[in-house]
Amino acid sequence: MNDIPTIRVGILGFGTVGQGTWKHLQENSSFWEKILAVRLVPVRASVRNLNKERKVLIPMESLTTDSNAIVDDPDIDVICELIGGIEEAKKLTLRAFSHGKSVVTANKALICEHGEELFNAAEKAGVHYAFEASVAGGIPIIKVLRESLVANEFPLIYGILNGTSNYILTRMENQGVGFEEVLKDARRLGYVEADEALDLEGFDAAHKAVILAYLAHGLWVDLKSITVEGISKISNEDLEAAFALGYKIKLIGVIRRNFANNHISVGVYPALVPVAEIIARTDGVYNGISLTGSVVGTVVLTGRGAGQDPTSGSVISDLVDVVKGIRGMNSYSKLIHVAPEECKLAQAIEICGCYYLRLSVVDKPGQLAKVAECLAEHEVSLATVSQSPKGASASANIILTTHETNEHSIAQAMKSLEQLGGVKEPPVLFRIFDPGPASR
Amino acid sequence: MNDIPTIRVGILGFGTVGQGTWKHLQENSSFWEKILAVRLVPVRASVRNLNKERKVLIPMESLTTDSNAIVDDPDIDVICELIGGIEEAKKLTLRAFSHGKSVVTANKALICEHGEELFNAAEKAGVHYAFEASVAGGIPIIKVLRESLVANEFPLIYGILNGTSNYILTRMENQGVGFEEVLKDARRLGYVEADEALDLEGFDAAHKAVILAYLAHGLWVDLKSITVEGISKISNEDLEAAFALGYKIKLIGVIRRNFANNHISVGVYPALVPVAEIIARTDGVYNGISLTGSVVGTVVLTGRGAGQDPTSGSVISDLVDVVKGIRGMNSYSKLIHVAPEECKLAQAIEICGCYYLRLSVVDKPGQLAKVAECLAEHEVSLATVSQSPKGASASANIILTTHETNEHSIAQAMKSLEQLGGVKEPPVLFRIFDPGPASR
Repeated sequence: MNDIPTIRVGILGFGTVGQGTWKHLQENSSFWEKILAVRLVPVRASVRNLNKERKVLIPMESLTTDSNAIVDDPDIDVICELIGGIEEAKKLTLRAFSHGKSVVTANKALICEHGEELFNAAEKAGVHYAFEASVAGGIPIIKVLRESLVANEFPLIYGILNGTSNYILTRMENQGVGFEEVLKDARRLGYVEADEALDLEGFDAAHKAVILAYLAHGLWVDLKSITVEGISKISNEDLEAAFALGYKIKLIGVIRRNFANNHISVGVYPALVPVAEIIARTDGVYNGISLTGSVVGTVVLTGRGAGQDPTSGSVISDLVDVVKGIRGMNSYSKLIHVAPEECKLAQAIEICGCYYLRLSVVDKPGQLAKVAECLAEHEVSLATVSQSPKGASASANIILTTHETNEHSIAQAMKSLEQLGGVKEPPVLFRIFDPGPASR
Repeated sequence: MNDIPTIRVGILGFGTVGQGTWKHLQENSSFWEKILAVRLVPVRASVRNLNKERKVLIPMESLTTDSNAIVDDPDIDVICELIGGIEEAKKLTLRAFSHGKSVVTANKALICEHGEELFNAAEKAGVHYAFEASVAGGIPIIKVLRESLVANEFPLIYGILNGTSNYILTRMENQGVGFEEVLKDARRLGYVEADEALDLEGFDAAHKAVILAYLAHGLWVDLKSITVEGISKISNEDLEAAFALGYKIKLIGVIRRNFANNHISVGVYPALVPVAEIIARTDGVYNGISLTGSVVGTVVLTGRGAGQDPTSGSVISDLVDVVKGIRGMNSYSKLIHVAPEECKLAQAIEICGCYYLRLSVVDKPGQLAKVAECLAEHEVSLATVSQSPKGASASANIILTTHETNEHSIAQAMKSLEQLGGVKEPPVLFRIFDPGPASR
């Protein structure tokens, strides 16, 4: 394995996302080798304070307070700029470009402010400037917009681009608690940025809307020339009144294009969104983006818009693309996630779940007891039962749900039920799907 | 412009998707030049019947009944295999590979059946075999799974992978109509495939689930070894009983992985899905896929899962990726959709919409009339009005919604309202978002 080349990653800024990127790069090192045929290794990170305790294992000698030293280090091939802020981040990024190094970033404010200059500089230097993590954290909106929906023009893009304000609105709505009270909780949970106006006054969402407008329409919009409003004026009364009218109030970024004159409007503001929209029902810290394309129609993406893991996952997907670019690989290289030998198909007895059954039975006393007994013989226990007579006929419908059992037991139980006296038609069985705690 | 190279596309099968691909390639020819610096030109298509009328303008001499002639044509660089079916499609695909030609396909049945062989053959031949259009039409699930979420392992992937069966279930549910009756409509609308079992018995969704299982876990699953059930046993009574229990019945594909033993379960069946899930509320011909990744958490994508435009849009996004591969371009080449000069920012007066206002006013007769007059002076007309006294104070809250007006008029009206006698605090204004007919 010694002939595999190594690509060394330097991380500027070792906060939440920087540490997450370091962690996931290390944890999955053998996977990167498999799909990229290179070692992708994080080697140095810059911090403000060398002595602060960190949750991620990192050797002391990998840390420095000098970001320039990482950018200039000839052993480092790719830079992740995760320090945030504008001026220093911009200087470091341009400096990396000048050394021929590609940069992966999550810095929406910087791109919003200086994107045009930075993209031009990257192109001139022949390097990548990748920014999936800058908009909507773990939701792959940048790649979807630029690559997957390349055949489209976009009359409308809109969505929830800031998780903190959405968390506050959702709690106000669900619990009837006032803005100030929920804000206190959000601060305590560390959801609110140090510069609170970014979250509360809509500027964070506006940075992202400006980036999306550029990608969709090629127009760099000046933040000062668009509507940017936050959530501080929303009262519980407004949330209730809106709901009575068939809406939810959400802080949304909206990018519309009028194809008659190619005029574009971009804004971030609280709006009444019809409850039928997925965006209206995207709650808590989740983000959601609805893209209406001229070819595809409407595609909606939802997911976690911030947080260590989702955001560093996007940083890493960019790193993988950058490495593919450096290595001359294309997007079809190495399809699969896992070698086949590691996985095999589960047996019926391992596949657990709850079930829904409908039986048509003769309408006689004791029939339900017979059904329950038959199921119990196969160790299938009942969660709910309802029985209703079936019109004029002498039959009744029994609708059952079970507690957790498995595919083998339920199949055996179904066979027995088919044979059971008083059961008039083959029973109907559907699985009850459990999305689990990980899903919403 | 004569020094721009040309990449010639041959289309096998000129049905719905083939014609859509031809149409969109032609309509946007100048755009492909701009982003790819090549001419991307459809030159030939194979058909079963030369004399059939078509909705797309195509020169007679571009048509042939001989697909092999297109594959073998040395002037053709890339092949779109859109004939469907297994045996002939497989032969043509392998033949294209043997000529060093990349193939873009929408053929889920072929990949499900012979994917392993075909991907290996493509790799050996050093060509691309691209298949975004094979799963969920316009939803970019393949790229998101393979590229954007590359840092993840997937405990759960599930969703609605067949639009026809979802259309039938949605109509049964919303209108209380029986399965057979809705099926007749679906046939008349051309929603049902010639081989009806593909849609109704779950096999189309199963082909897609097998492809997703391979991408997520590297395991090729034999269709015969997994649960595949369709929608024909679902009654209106079941839909109602499920809803009363807090569920909707959806035909879903489910791919679970148990990380303790790396056992994978794959199945397609009608299941009771909790109503809170986006997938449960994905209705009509829409598809939806929920991906739970070890890093990103849960990401959900919804959109049109079939149809000419969405599916050919995915074919084209693959073509663009293939061309980038052929030309040695990477995914960061040419960011933007449109040259900046074509677009400009809309003025306030052009940005139209309806608004929600909340005013705190003195609780006196005639106050509402004064507010309405003030708005009318700025040509803002009212849609709904409600007024409620505000506890013990001598004030009342007025909540208004307007008919359509524009940002300029409403801003002027707000200024006047602030000055208006009896208005106690600056009025609160929110926009009412209109997703338009294109959205759901």
